[in-house]
Formats: sequence, structure tokens, C-alpha cells
Amino acid sequence: MANAPVQRMSQLMAKTLRDDPADAEVLSHKLLVRAGYVRRTAAGVWTWLPLGRRVLANVERIVREEMDAIGAQEVLLPALLPREPYEATGRWDEYGPELFRLQDRKGGDYLLGPTHEEIFTLLVKDQASSYKDLPVILYQIQTKFRDEARPRAGILRGREFLMKDSYSFDLADEGLAESYALHRQAYQRVFDRLGLDYRICAATAGAMGGSKSEEFLAPAEAGEDTFADCPNCDFAANTEAITYELKPVDGSAVPALEEIPTPDTPTIETLAASLGVPASATLKNLLVKVDGEIVAVGVPGDREVDMDKVEAHFAPAVVEMVTEEDFAGRPDLVRGYVGPQGLEKVTYLADPRVAPGTAWITGANKPDLHAKNVVAGRDFEVDEYVDVVVVREGDPCPKCGTGLKLDRAIEIGHIFQLGRKYADALKLDVLGQNGKPVRVTMGSYGIGVSRAVAALAEQTADEHGLVWPREVAPADVHVVAAGKALQTELALEVSEKLRTAGLRVLVDDRAGVSPGVKFTDAELIGVPQILVAGRRSAEGVLELKDRKTGEREELTVDEAIARLTAMQA
Amino acid sequence: MANAPVQRMSQLMAKTLRDDPADAEVLSHKLLVRAGYVRRTAAGVWTWLPLGRRVLANVERIVREEMDAIGAQEVLLPALLPREPYEATGRWDEYGPELFRLQDRKGGDYLLGPTHEEIFTLLVKDQASSYKDLPVILYQIQTKFRDEARPRAGILRGREFLMKDSYSFDLADEGLAESYALHRQAYQRVFDRLGLDYRICAATAGAMGGSKSEEFLAPAEAGEDTFADCPNCDFAANTEAITYELKPVDGSAVPALEEIPTPDTPTIETLAASLGVPASATLKNLLVKVDGEIVAVGVPGDREVDMDKVEAHFAPAVVEMVTEEDFAGRPDLVRGYVGPQGLEKVTYLADPRVAPGTAWITGANKPDLHAKNVVAGRDFEVDEYVDVVVVREGDPCPKCGTGLKLDRAIEIGHIFQLGRKYADALKLDVLGQNGKPVRVTMGSYGIGVSRAVAALAEQTADEHGLVWPREVAPADVHVVAAGKALQTELALEVSEKLRTAGLRVLVDDRAGVSPGVKFTDAELIGVPQILVAGRRSAEGVLELKDRKTGEREELTVDEAIARLTAMQA
Repeated sequence: MANAPVQRMSQLMAKTLRDDPADAEVLSHKLLVRAGYVRRTAAGVWTWLPLGRRVLANVERIVREEMDAIGAQEVLLPALLPREPYEATGRWDEYGPELFRLQDRKGGDYLLGPTHEEIFTLLVKDQASSYKDLPVILYQIQTKFRDEARPRAGILRGREFLMKDSYSFDLADEGLAESYALHRQAYQRVFDRLGLDYRICAATAGAMGGSKSEEFLAPAEAGEDTFADCPNCDFAANTEAITYELKPVDGSAVPALEEIPTPDTPTIETLAASLGVPASATLKNLLVKVDGEIVAVGVPGDREVDMDKVEAHFAPAVVEMVTEEDFAGRPDLVRGYVGPQGLEKVTYLADPRVAPGTAWITGANKPDLHAKNVVAGRDFEVDEYVDVVVVREGDPCPKCGTGLKLDRAIEIGHIFQLGRKYADALKLDVLGQNGKPVRVTMGSYGIGVSRAVAALAEQTADEHGLVWPREVAPADVHVVAAGKALQTELALEVSEKLRTAGLRVLVDDRAGVSPGVKFTDAELIGVPQILVAGRRSAEGVLELKDRKTGEREELTVDEAIARLTAMQA
Repeated sequence: MANAPVQRMSQLMAKTLRDDPADAEVLSHKLLVRAGYVRRTAAGVWTWLPLGRRVLANVERIVREEMDAIGAQEVLLPALLPREPYEATGRWDEYGPELFRLQDRKGGDYLLGPTHEEIFTLLVKDQASSYKDLPVILYQIQTKFRDEARPRAGILRGREFLMKDSYSFDLADEGLAESYALHRQAYQRVFDRLGLDYRICAATAGAMGGSKSEEFLAPAEAGEDTFADCPNCDFAANTEAITYELKPVDGSAVPALEEIPTPDTPTIETLAASLGVPASATLKNLLVKVDGEIVAVGVPGDREVDMDKVEAHFAPAVVEMVTEEDFAGRPDLVRGYVGPQGLEKVTYLADPRVAPGTAWITGANKPDLHAKNVVAGRDFEVDEYVDVVVVREGDPCPKCGTGLKLDRAIEIGHIFQLGRKYADALKLDVLGQNGKPVRVTMGSYGIGVSRAVAALAEQTADEHGLVWPREVAPADVHVVAAGKALQTELALEVSEKLRTAGLRVLVDDRAGVSPGVKFTDAELIGVPQILVAGRRSAEGVLELKDRKTGEREELTVDEAIARLTAMQA
């Protein structure tokens, strides 16, 4: 196959914009739209223009090569999936409104695949019958659909997106651990080649089920995940995955519970101020309804409750906030003065910081009264300990105790040891070496291919625009004809030579566009090397500019070709 | 990038089957399932297993290269599309039940794109503002969805399938003709490279609208299209697109209309027999309801009416057959004895063979009576002439009059000159050279990428299985270890050498599988060259077999490598 033709900007479907799109909140969204890489088709649904399609294809290629390298086999599954397998695993309902559901002309129920565990499980059930057929890793690069409540941030969180998902099938836990390790290494190679800055963090498993799971997080302000990094040890985790250890203390010396009048102290702040104690000495009791049943959640007064953690804890049950009406006919619940002591008809969950033996100031379950010296395990019982507080900068590292640093990040990859959840639901067995059926254990692994493009844009952009790493860039060199016919002729001539030498070339041959606009566009588009045919074109001298470093040098045509070709090696 | 690793059959997810799947009707369906290329996930929805994924990727690559070569720019549009643009062109309704419609969590209406004219039109409206931005050809290789009434024939007619669709945008008709010609050439190169036997046939435009359109039809028994080929001249057309020319005759010498008693002649056959005339002398009048209104269609008694043509003629109106109830209260309609003379309240359509001046035997609109010498234009008026009869083998070629030959074929490509239908509906203008807006003219062009795989399987298979052309095959060579450890060792060794030489290698290293089964599987899978490490392995001699011709020869390892490498050139 011949090299791809030189792409002329005069013909390229990539209109650059001077202003940020009105609905753009994050950098990658602004830049990818302005530089003509993507356009919005509907909320959370995007079109990839020619430059964007190329970058996406480059990411696909890198992912494919690294998956092939660990012996994974590429397949392609449909997006339109039947209801039954998702019914069998419970996800038809559990997914809630995030799942796009539809009916065919005969009224059959279908969904648009948000992820394909069920179908891969059934595929292997059809294909593998014996222990000799395992282990196997299957992957696809395929379009996924999720009806996000708030599609935002451009292609960082779309409702239709490109994903590499893979699934491993093993006979035993050690095999799963090995498949998991292979993926972990492949992901590191992928993200290293993409030139992404990332951390591998412990993560919750979310709606996937299963045990061990790690996220690949790319630090970026636009990220929707918060991760904690220990400045002292190697600990790094999604804050959702950090749990505080339960450490009981000796509370036997605490004086007896005492009620104290506290008029006009409707908030933790006013209460703490009026008593002259820190907010952390008080116990805050949040009431929620879980499938309609009232549950109280106790956390130290200075901590916020992470509702995502509460929801994850009770999932698939539905969690709602209590309303005025829920207090009607419940004299045991005194609004603003709830305390766990005597809350007999209510399930009481508490943060591990409310450990047995700790003493608190909390509501006395009577108007305008609080109670002090309220000791966990003595004055009230905790039905279940669960860490639901928002992790804060400076919270102790679970590994070494040093204060943690918090950062925003984009989840670019996720690896899970699913175990036998799906194999159990869909009865995936193979015949073992002893002739008896063995239940298969699975892993599930994802890379957000389209999201990786946005993450790269976020991390590498500067004040002038996008700055692509070479392997991902839509071209190797952006040739700019900065002048009239002479410059255009030289630009086209050198472009053709570069193409013949094996480079992917974009050339700005637009007539009637000033050199200034062309330079601005070249910086915005972010091809790694910019080769300008300008003032010294008559002498055959060009200027080569490194997009990232800004370094420039003047070179003859032959020198420029030699220099650029050498960079590909 | 290093060459793809050698693929071992012992690890490959491709279970071959000895028997045809129970639901398979056509050859490609049977073979692609049996050889482990595809598996059914739901009705008309398929999974591509590793071997199938490779073939599909090869077809994609060829299509991409040839589209790039005509200067088309690759983009990627979403499958999930908003209702509004399809509402604007009328296709939201016109598509009927073939369109997958769904709602998002907010109740917004969406569809799964069956084809993307609307969205491309809007994309160019956003991107192009001046005549300088045109012409442009955009393409994508993307998943389409159509809720076929009878998904059948495996991947030949699925409900989710991979398609290359492209769209051209021009200022003037000549530009459109050129974009159309470029596509025609590119399609010829694609199908030539794929090794498909095909005809370029005049076609109806179907639901697309527009004027000129041609189909690329691959002759195959499993095809759903029938095309006519002239053995004398270069005429070839989908039978749906063939129309008989209206040739009025002089009917002035025909005697006056005469009613004749015809008891017990409920059918054309019994009528013709009792009168001793050929069926072609009688006029058959079919009654249908068009949006509830009764319409009569007259054709010679020996011809069948093609209901698809009738439906296409009246689309988007709904065509139904009349029922017993429709005759109630209509004394003018005598069942079995309908004739066009005196059918005043009914619209009368007729085949061009019922030309002015032709005389017929037809119903007398009275029970047990027919009429003869019924002359078109004298005794009855035809409201509209439209060719709705089924084309028959031996019908005259519209170009030279020779009797046509009919064959079944698979539609593998379709090119349309759409004109301004979509540009009008969505108001796509650019500023012309004179500063005034110019309405853009469009073309739309499709290749069924997944269908091309099935068409290839249909055309190239033999009694032993699939026979892939080299550029499409899942591997260049299939190495078979026909024996024990010695043969397996040699097979793996030569496989690695072939990989190093740049070949894509599949090696059957399965333990405990007999040479016979391996040979059968190799024939079934259809890689072009089969290299067997068998009886003379100890001497380092292999047998090379050409899958297509069956030719065999014995070669040393080095000779085999040289021979196979030379084939790639």
C-alpha cells in the first residue's frame, strides 16, 4: 500500500474556530471543537471529523497492538443485545436509567450494550468445552452506549463512545491473577505509548461486581474522579475506594450521658460555637430512606457524607433524602436534634471514626436539647460500620499515616477481577482435567478509547492549543505555506517529498488566508512538527518548529526531510 | 510494529462444527458458522469471532485505502441520532418499522442510524460556508441498524451490520457526476481487490430519493436481488429497475366489445382453457387498497404483479390487498369478474403492455360473464401506466430486444445521485463565487462491509469449505502439524520463520486431534495456502497445498518460505 496522500488544508473538513463553544466547560472540549477534531451531534453524542478520526484510529491501533501482544484475540460483538442474559445477571434492572432500552418491531426487548460481560460469558460457554480451551482473553474495540444523566465535558463523558473491552476466562484464581497482571502490563504499555501521565489506583468495583479492581487515572482538572496520592509512600487510590480503619478506644472513663439545653443551634457550626468545642467533637446524624425505610447515618460533625458511597453501599436499593412528610407521625425523630441513643426503630449506620468507646455531643431527640458524653457501644449501638465520608486533603494515608494529597483525574482504564459472578449467573462451566465440570473465573478490563483522546488533549495542551505526542498525532508534520505562489509551490513540493519518505503530511495550502492565521491554526491543531515555507523560500530554506518546545531552526529542503525522517525511527 | 504473532489453533477461539446450524438457509451462513467465523447473538445480530474479525478488518482496510485514494476524508458519526433531522426530511415516518426508535431518560426521541444522509448534510452545513469548501467527499466505516422484518441468510441481511457510507457535496450537477464517477471507479477497485464477481446494474433509488443510481450486484444463489443480464449487449439491471416501453398500437379494426358467458372460470387458467386462448390474451385486474382507497391494476393474464413495485410506486402510502369486506356495498366490483370498462369510481393503473389500442378478454363486471374485444383507450381509460409486472427470463432486453437472462445476486454496493433532496429539506447552501447562496447537490454511496464478507464466502466456497482470496484471508498460510511431537515442533518452527518473513500465520498445533480432522478444518477455514508437516518431517520436507486449486508439492523448509514469501509480492 502506498503512503496516505498529503492532506491539503484547503480541502480538509476541519473548520477551526477562534472562540470557545458556548457549552464547553473543560479544556479538551473547547480545544477539540475549536481545532476541528469533533462536533456535537446531540447531547453526549459526537461526530469525529477527519483530524479527530485519525487520532482516534491511532489510539485504536496502539491498543490493538498491545492487546495482541499479550495473546488476546480480537472479536467484534454487536451493540444491539437481547434482554435475557442481562435479566439473568440482574443488570437489566440494576443498570437503571443509564441503560438504553428499546423494542424491535415484534416487541422484543433489547438494550444497547453499556459493557458486554454477559455476552462474552455466553460466547465462551458456546465455544469452550474443556479445560484445554482455557485460559483465553478476548477483546473488542467497539461502540458503547450509556444514558448518562448529565453528559458533559465533551467526549470525556459521552453517551455513545468507543471502548476497548476485554474479558479473561480462567480455570483457577491463579490464572485470573495472571490474566489480570497481563492486562495491567499491557495497559501500562498502552498509556506509556500514548504519552499519558497516569496513576494506577485501588478502586471500588462499582456495578461490575467482583473483588480486586484498579483504575488507571490520568490527573487532569477536568476529571470527574478524585484520587488520593500519598507524598510519603506508594499509596494511590480513588477516594471512593479509601476506607478508614475501625479503631475501638477505651471509653470507660467517660462520665455519664448528660442532656444540655442548646437553644438556637440548628447547625453543627452554631452548636459547636455555642459550646466552645470543635465540630469534630459532635456527631452528625443524616437520615435517608432506603427503599422507603428510614436509615440514620452517623459521621463526625466536621465530615461530609459522600452520597455516592451511601448509594453504592445500598445498591441496588434506591436511596432518597428524607422530606418534611417523613417526620409526620414519628415523634422519635426530632428534626435537628436526632441522636443515636434511643433510636430504636431506625437502623443506625456509622462511620468507622464513630468507633466503640468514642464519646460525642449529639442530639437528645428532644427540641432544643443536645446530649454530651454519648458513648458508642455504651449509650447506643451501631448496626453497621461503613465508610461514607468524603475523603479530605490531609486525611491519613491508610498505609503509612502521612497526610494524603488529593487530585482530580480522568479514568482512562479499569481492570477488574470479576471472579465467578457472571459465570455463576450464566452457568459457565468447562470440563476439568478430572472430567468434572469446573466453574470458570473471569476478569473484565476496559480502556476508554475516545476518552483517552480527550485525556491526552487535557494533559498536553498549552495556551496555544493542542500538542499531540507523535504516535497519536493526526500527521507527523504540518507544512505551512506562509506567503504567495512561491511559498505554496515549495510547501506542496516538500510535502510530496515527505510523503514519499513515509511521513504523514498535512499542508496548509489555503489561498487568501494570512500567514498569521495559518500559524495560529497550526498551533491550535497541534501536529508535533511545523515546517514553514516563508521568507527564505526562494533560497529553498524552510523553518522547522517543534510544537511542544517552540524551538525553531532554519533548514534546507533536504535537511528538513532528513531531520523529520530521522524523528520517525 | 512487529508482525502479528503466530496464531495457534490450540488457543484460538474458533470452534469448527461438522454439521450445518439448524437455522442456516444459505451457504455463507452455514460455512461461516461451521468454520468458526461468526456466531448468532440474536435474530439478525452477529458476533464476529477472531477469524471473522480478521476478514472483516481486511475488507475494511481495502475499502479505506480505495476511499482515501479518491480523496475522500474519513470521519465517524454516531449511531444514536436525534429525531429532528429525520423529521425534517420525512424519513422518521417513511422508514416505518425498519427504523429502530428509542427514547432517552428524559423522553427525547432518538433513532439508530440506518444510513446518515441527514447528519452528513448538517455536518457540511456546519463546516462549509463557501464554494471554496466544495467539492468534498466524506466517508465512514460504521455500524448501521435496520429492523428487518425477516432477518435471514446469516450476515447477508442482518439487523446490525458494518457499512462504508460516503456522501459527496458539490455545487453543480457536473460536479456530482464527477463525484459519482469517482465512487464508481473506487468501487470497481474495491470489488476487484476483494476478488468478487459482480455486475454494475441500473437500479431503482428506493427510499433514498434522487435520480441516477446503480447497484453492484454479486451473482450468488443466496442473493435477495434478481438481476437481468442481456446475452447480446451490455445491458444489466436489477429486475426492479426494468420498465417496459409503452408502445401504442392501432386498434381501430378490433370488432365491438362483446360479452360472453363464462361459467365456472374463476381463474385465468380456466378462463383461457375454456375459450381456447393463451392466458396472455386476457387482462387480469388486481384490486389493492392504497391508504384505504381501492385501486385496480391491470396486467396481461400471463404476468405476475410484483407487489414490491406496486408498493414502491405508491410509497409512502400504505398498500394492502382487498378483503371480502371491501366488496360489501360495492355492486360495481364483482369478485372474479372485474373489468376496467365501467370501473368509474376506481383509479385504474395498467402495465405498459396494456397499451392504447390493444384488445383484451376481461371481466364484464357481472357474475359468470366476461367481455372480449375490450380495447384500451376505446372501451376503458388507463389513469396511469406503470410497470409492475415481475420480469421473466426471456423478456426482451430494453436496449436490444434479445431475451434476457435472469440471475440471483447479492447487493454489495450502491451508488446514488441524490441531487438536492436532502439539501432542500435541511437548507444546505454555500456562498457562490458571485456572493449568492448556492444550494448544494449530493450523492450517497454505500458498501456493505460485513455483507461483502458473506458474498465472498458465497462466491468462492467449494464443497470442502471456504476459499478466501489472499488479501481478505484471515492468514496467509495455515500450517498443519500432522503427527506427533516431531511434526508439531517443525510446524511451530516454520511458522515462526514465516512470521519473521512478514507472513500472517495460523498453525494447527492442537494435541490429540487427528491429522484427518486438521486437514478437514484447514479446508473448511479456507486460508489460501496450507503447509503440512507430515510424514517427511524428519527430513525437513513439508507439503504445500493450494487451497483453491488443490495442487500440492513437497518442499524443504527454506523452499516453502521462499515460495510463500514470493506470493506476497
